[in-house]
Amino acid sequence: MRVQGLIAATFSTFNEDGSLNLSLVPRLVDNLVSQGIKGVFICGTNGEGPNLTTEERMATVDAYVKAVNKRCLVMVHVGHASIAEARRLAAHAQQAGADAISAVSAFYFKPGSARIMVDCMAEIAAAAPLLPFYYYHIPAITGVAVNPLEFLQLGESRIPNLAGIKYTAATLHEYQACLNYKDGKFDILFGYDELLLPALSVGAKGAIGSTYTFATPLYLRIMELFNNGDIVAARELQYQAVKMIQCLGWHSPIPAQKAIMKLLGTDLGPCRLPLQALDSTQVEEINSYLGEIGFVKVLENVTTA
Amino acid sequence: MRVQGLIAATFSTFNEDGSLNLSLVPRLVDNLVSQGIKGVFICGTNGEGPNLTTEERMATVDAYVKAVNKRCLVMVHVGHASIAEARRLAAHAQQAGADAISAVSAFYFKPGSARIMVDCMAEIAAAAPLLPFYYYHIPAITGVAVNPLEFLQLGESRIPNLAGIKYTAATLHEYQACLNYKDGKFDILFGYDELLLPALSVGAKGAIGSTYTFATPLYLRIMELFNNGDIVAARELQYQAVKMIQCLGWHSPIPAQKAIMKLLGTDLGPCRLPLQALDSTQVEEINSYLGEIGFVKVLENVTTA
Amino acid sequence: MRVQGLIAATFSTFNEDGSLNLSLVPRLVDNLVSQGIKGVFICGTNGEGPNLTTEERMATVDAYVKAVNKRCLVMVHVGHASIAEARRLAAHAQQAGADAISAVSAFYFKPGSARIMVDCMAEIAAAAPLLPFYYYHIPAITGVAVNPLEFLQLGESRIPNLAGIKYTAATLHEYQACLNYKDGKFDILFGYDELLLPALSVGAKGAIGSTYTFATPLYLRIMELFNNGDIVAARELQYQAVKMIQCLGWHSPIPAQKAIMKLLGTDLGPCRLPLQALDSTQVEEINSYLGEIGFVKVLENVTTA
Amino acid sequence: MRVQGLIAATFSTFNEDGSLNLSLVPRLVDNLVSQGIKGVFICGTNGEGPNLTTEERMATVDAYVKAVNKRCLVMVHVGHASIAEARRLAAHAQQAGADAISAVSAFYFKPGSARIMVDCMAEIAAAAPLLPFYYYHIPAITGVAVNPLEFLQLGESRIPNLAGIKYTAATLHEYQACLNYKDGKFDILFGYDELLLPALSVGAKGAIGSTYTFATPLYLRIMELFNNGDIVAARELQYQAVKMIQCLGWHSPIPAQKAIMKLLGTDLGPCRLPLQALDSTQVEEINSYLGEIGFVKVLENVTTA
Repeated sequence: MRVQGLIAATFSTFNEDGSLNLSLVPRLVDNLVSQGIKGVFICGTNGEGPNLTTEERMATVDAYVKAVNKRCLVMVHVGHASIAEARRLAAHAQQAGADAISAVSAFYFKPGSARIMVDCMAEIAAAAPLLPFYYYHIPAITGVAVNPLEFLQLGESRIPNLAGIKYTAATLHEYQACLNYKDGKFDILFGYDELLLPALSVGAKGAIGSTYTFATPLYLRIMELFNNGDIVAARELQYQAVKMIQCLGWHSPIPAQKAIMKLLGTDLGPCRLPLQALDSTQVEEINSYLGEIGFVKVLENVTTA
Repeated sequence: MRVQGLIAATFSTFNEDGSLNLSLVPRLVDNLVSQGIKGVFICGTNGEGPNLTTEERMATVDAYVKAVNKRCLVMVHVGHASIAEARRLAAHAQQAGADAISAVSAFYFKPGSARIMVDCMAEIAAAAPLLPFYYYHIPAITGVAVNPLEFLQLGESRIPNLAGIKYTAATLHEYQACLNYKDGKFDILFGYDELLLPALSVGAKGAIGSTYTFATPLYLRIMELFNNGDIVAARELQYQAVKMIQCLGWHSPIPAQKAIMKLLGTDLGPCRLPLQALDSTQVEEINSYLGEIGFVKVLENVTTA
Repeated sequence: MRVQGLIAATFSTFNEDGSLNLSLVPRLVDNLVSQGIKGVFICGTNGEGPNLTTEERMATVDAYVKAVNKRCLVMVHVGHASIAEARRLAAHAQQAGADAISAVSAFYFKPGSARIMVDCMAEIAAAAPLLPFYYYHIPAITGVAVNPLEFLQLGESRIPNLAGIKYTAATLHEYQACLNYKDGKFDILFGYDELLLPALSVGAKGAIGSTYTFATPLYLRIMELFNNGDIVAARELQYQAVKMIQCLGWHSPIPAQKAIMKLLGTDLGPCRLPLQALDSTQVEEINSYLGEIGFVKVLENVTTA
Repeated sequence: MRVQGLIAATFSTFNEDGSLNLSLVPRLVDNLVSQGIKGVFICGTNGEGPNLTTEERMATVDAYVKAVNKRCLVMVHVGHASIAEARRLAAHAQQAGADAISAVSAFYFKPGSARIMVDCMAEIAAAAPLLPFYYYHIPAITGVAVNPLEFLQLGESRIPNLAGIKYTAATLHEYQACLNYKDGKFDILFGYDELLLPALSVGAKGAIGSTYTFATPLYLRIMELFNNGDIVAARELQYQAVKMIQCLGWHSPIPAQKAIMKLLGTDLGPCRLPLQALDSTQVEEINSYLGEIGFVKVLENVTTA
């Protein structure tokens, strides 16, 4: 498996009472497909996977597989504190017709070495043997900083369906090392939207990110400009992305993005504790900032370009 | 609810293949009850709760409630990355006949303030409204260091069944502050076995710990000596505990304790990834160290004292 | 060397413009001596040693040695990012007539192991070979968490004048292990005032702390009660200390303590950047809180007791 | 001031006994100048500034200013735990004829906000009012993660000679935001050699780094290729740098780089505690690895290209 292009790490869809609202999925998917997205990454960090029950995660997978209907890839995050639950999720994803699975490190007890991490991931990957498996490296949340290159070195013989890494860290030198491992044997998908251009510069071909859910044309244009050798123009657009992403950190990034989607016309509902939807003052603050930096105009310009 | 004495944070019981082996529970419980334990804390950190599936956690609760048969308290850890799953576990615990529940902070997404922590815990506690609820403070694992006194202050009006805190941290000054909050309104159970005597000195009456599973008489004797005003003798025994606990950190504390239990005659089976049973060299190292410090002799002496 | 009792970690004394004001030292010392303090610890964390130049640190030592005039111990903190500067400070302390020296870990580059830490401390201690040397363990500030017991084990043969440890951490089990090393070969002075009673319970005889500078009688009474076996009364007074110390963390602990000293009648001047004196609102907040908890009354009661 | 090109963060030069050996400076400088370096950054992290005494740091500045003799820039790191000492170093640098100064955050006591950081840096910068001042952002060592963009926003009015930032962090999105602040008002020099190409992609023009001391032609070639629009060739060379830098982390990066310089023919002597020179096994390991990846050949190729 080799992803070229952008995968949207989609958001959870809730009713106001916090229950799942999967009726919102089809429109979300249609919109992403029409904008040129190559896949959806579901039940990940951004999709609040760890806030859902196992059954809710499975139902979400079913809804996406059906809505996507093979128009793009469905990559399912199955990571869980319990490897036994992760295996249930992996087996379900395969059976449900997903295209790939991915898992973060166990995050209550933390693997003490790259070797143990590989042992954990091998157990999960083995529960969906027909699907490509991507190790999801996100040390800022899991607190586990296994060297991803060492993971590949140890994992390639232990995990037959190892396809690559979802790499969510700013350490682009280690990212570049993973990309180059055995002449590019693995698919290393980059996960920090605000660093897309720098990642392209060291060789990224595919990326998974949350803001690709609502600003797809901006990032596709960055990739196009980069591929055409127009680094200066790509840099200017990347800076627009950087500016937009700055406001996500003012409160809590996932609720902030849901607020932006709502401002842009797509209401996906609230978040689940320990996340909390922004209050109206916070939403207004973000709205006003996006106005100041002309974000909607930027989106329009790249869409019509 | 007010616990005086020791609660054993019991270990998981597995078959060699890693599946649950609940047939080991009755003997484990009988042994603890006969040694004077006041309760069992199950599916907690030490019990590898986060490594089990929700169904396995429920089955473990059922097995303990039956085995205990009201001879001591059954306190069930229901903490989970997903509050929705934690609520399922809480409701089950109440229905199954447990005596109390407890929950760690959500640990993938982390509550950003004491207020949000209280919101989270209120949701969980409300799913078992008839049971006393203990907030489980263990910042070294969850990475969440909400001030526990602030938790009590905010939580008392929001969580009707708030009974207290399982306090697993070395910050005995904050522990003392919690003990003294509103003249001791809440039950603050101490969770660091190696600091039992210092905790008693600031007013602890009850404690929950993993080594109470296999060294009950040692700690009961410390409490007895302390209560009799013989601080010097209590200190000497506490030092025996400190020395024993030193070897738990050489490799991985939970597998090390299971190895010690096996050395002492009770084989509870392996651990689950990301934990791994010690290898034979590691076990021998521990065995030899326990011999050097005369740990078995210490246990015999306090038992016959 | 074996310290029994309390050592005050004194504060820096500045003019309003931030220059040293050593004319305040004699009165500060007289007051401490008259209250029964066993020594002063100068230029440490609380004394803003790392904010001073090497020359200012030396001048401070000279002023204290003169003011103390052998009425109590003068212990000089000589720790520095540069071991070469620390050696200068150590040599000066010996020549100036101090009674002991102490040093924190190098804190820009951090020793990577207990062995390297011992190498560093051996170099510093060797520059004052006639003075007892205390390793200053304060991981919360230096970020270096070398196991203090391992430090003693490796250090005893490498540092001829190793006297013990200034132990500023809440890990009382490791503290107890250090106290018991080779039947109490080393002098392990405890450094967390809010944990004095728990430290006494595991065997502490001496302690160094900042609040001993302005609440000496409170802590001396705790020690007396503890030694008389009245743990309940000692605990009540320790809780008074815990309550007072809570307000130190509201803003910045060292400026907060200087504010309290000023409220109690001793104005030692401002702090140096990156520390900043509290503003008047913050001072009033603390004043009002101390009123609420009756702190001055507590001090009076223990003084007349 | 606006630096375009590379500044070498040079190493300390010691005799075998650990005393300064400034006689090595002229040859080191001549070599760097002849290779096209734009400046030297001295007494920084890589130059072990914090391991030196104030007097030794001043002597080092004098030696470099003389050796450089205006052939390239001399940028002096004056950061210190004590702002008073940092001011002495700043004043000396100006008097000695340096071209710019730079300072890390105070690192024993840590500024609690961007505002306090600006206050600290304003005091230091004011001691060398005629020199451009660069704030040195290196959170991985100081533990202080003030947002650098906020630093610029608050600092521009408070620090008249603020020239920019030495930016040593992998957060290239914040780096890009700083570069773009007020249309590039400040000079933001990038400090992670292994990320030079990604930094160029977002607009870096100048960089300061340790490996520029011994692999100048490699990085100059990367910049040249990048400026010519040949991103693929630049990426290949950047990967050579990444591979080389991997081995620096096996033991301790600064001693490892000194070992490499010695292998390449320039012996600068040992390091100072808490750093330690690699032992012969470690050196051989590195030597053999560099052979494997053909590093010397890479250097030769870019030199003759």
